[in-house]
Amino acid sequence: MAEPYVALVPLRWSDMDAYGHVNNVQFLRLLEDARVIGIAEWGGDGPSMLDEGIVVSRHAIEYRAPLSFRPAPVRVDMWVTRTHGAGFDLGYVVRDPEDLGETVYAVAETGLVLYDFAAGRPRRLSREVTAVLDRHRGEPVAFRWERR
Amino acid sequence: MAEPYVALVPLRWSDMDAYGHVNNVQFLRLLEDARVIGIAEWGGDGPSMLDEGIVVSRHAIEYRAPLSFRPAPVRVDMWVTRTHGAGFDLGYVVRDPEDLGETVYAVAETGLVLYDFAAGRPRRLSREVTAVLDRHRGEPVAFRWERR
Amino acid sequence: MAEPYVALVPLRWSDMDAYGHVNNVQFLRLLEDARVIGIAEWGGDGPSMLDEGIVVSRHAIEYRAPLSFRPAPVRVDMWVTRTHGAGFDLGYVVRDPEDLGETVYAVAETGLVLYDFAAGRPRRLSREVTAVLDRHRGEPVAFRWERR
Amino acid sequence: MAEPYVALVPLRWSDMDAYGHVNNVQFLRLLEDARVIGIAEWGGDGPSMLDEGIVVSRHAIEYRAPLSFRPAPVRVDMWVTRTHGAGFDLGYVVRDPEDLGETVYAVAETGLVLYDFAAGRPRRLSREVTAVLDRHRGEPVAFRWERR
Repeated sequence: MAEPYVALVPLRWSDMDAYGHVNNVQFLRLLEDARVIGIAEWGGDGPSMLDEGIVVSRHAIEYRAPLSFRPAPVRVDMWVTRTHGAGFDLGYVVRDPEDLGETVYAVAETGLVLYDFAAGRPRRLSREVTAVLDRHRGEPVAFRWERR
Repeated sequence: MAEPYVALVPLRWSDMDAYGHVNNVQFLRLLEDARVIGIAEWGGDGPSMLDEGIVVSRHAIEYRAPLSFRPAPVRVDMWVTRTHGAGFDLGYVVRDPEDLGETVYAVAETGLVLYDFAAGRPRRLSREVTAVLDRHRGEPVAFRWERR
Repeated sequence: MAEPYVALVPLRWSDMDAYGHVNNVQFLRLLEDARVIGIAEWGGDGPSMLDEGIVVSRHAIEYRAPLSFRPAPVRVDMWVTRTHGAGFDLGYVVRDPEDLGETVYAVAETGLVLYDFAAGRPRRLSREVTAVLDRHRGEPVAFRWERR
Repeated sequence: MAEPYVALVPLRWSDMDAYGHVNNVQFLRLLEDARVIGIAEWGGDGPSMLDEGIVVSRHAIEYRAPLSFRPAPVRVDMWVTRTHGAGFDLGYVVRDPEDLGETVYAVAETGLVLYDFAAGRPRRLSREVTAVLDRHRGEPVAFRWERR
């Protein structure tokens, strides 16, 4: 199993809500940024999955600690938890960068489906894309909460 | 089992992203609005749970159909799926208002924890609050995706 | 001179920032909503200016009073302050709805340019569109601050 | 006259709207980020003006070129255009970083007022803060549009 991909995602002051913490919804925004940075980089010179269209089919996110704005970015560890015919799942841990400590703010998982916007339908994961994703495979996300 | 609470939540043109659809993250923003509207109303004259502090502990959301901006609000059906010592879970269906049709855009669930900001710790669901929530109890959310 | 057009624009809880007030940037978002609502309505059965493309060329906004989230919408008075060959200016007052009082939260002005996205260049205000806009003409915005 | 302060402000994919460009309102968000970064840095070891409270009293912004999301940040040149008893004005140019070219996306100006939140009233610029600001004084913003 490979090391997770690490994206450093800057916060914005406006990510905070009236409680003075990064709003729970904005965490999903940080994950979006991590995906945009990461998937472009994973693609390398090869097929850009983003250009061809990826649609989010689901999210699950669990919050662990409150986060306030600071100039330092958060570190998002990101890896592939599953691939299937028409898409793949990503796992994430949102945490402090190494030099700031051990705090974990959230863990999350996103389901993604490859989509052909022109044709208006999902498309199949190519062998090339599957190979790219397999280089980033990792464990299932360790949610504390499980369906009861 | 009670009828779900219905919140009509207006869209904003800016909810759309570069794909021309309401962005997946913005759906969580719509749910936040539904909670703010609904929980204030549920509280009635009684104890305002919001004023005393509620923290989101997790979200799960599954997208079913693309949504584009239109002047008409979306309808969010919202109900309580679980209560426990320190909080409760809400289920939602994001759909068209009755006069617009049957389309379901998303189903979701949020875990909420009551929090005493002054004391810096979770607090227990009072008997009064539990009674309010019980009037809005409903079925588990029918996610298509289940933990494998 | 015509009465200004009145748009009722709902707030979102997330419009508030860490100071507990509707963030200054979000006021521009409320104006965007007022434009989307208003310009669609002004167009009537006639030419939809929005469908053909409008680009914001400038904003000026002056804040008068802090605003906090509440379920009641704000009232945005909106009118045309100028038309010229390639576009027009809108003036706004953001205030409480009549039943809530006299508070003015902001006054603002936006420069808009009609744009032909397909051809990649500005386009001229048609006689029809000018006629629509003239029905909404009003006074210049009464900014307190003026260029010194 | 001093060189303007330079802040490199990262974009987010979500800054784009349905037209596929960084939304005009989001430019103000980028300026907010530049202020948060810059004013903290200007303060140095001395009095933190941000901690004591700054309120935005007005914005003027003029858009010059469309901007699309890219991994590279925008460069925001920022300087003081005026100081007065109770606050100061900032000028900005939003442009490409040096290695990307000469494109200017927007010019803008913000009026800021120092505010004592505890006492609920504006406060006077101290001699220390004025001295800090004077080190960043520059020319008025060269808006193309002027009040007619």
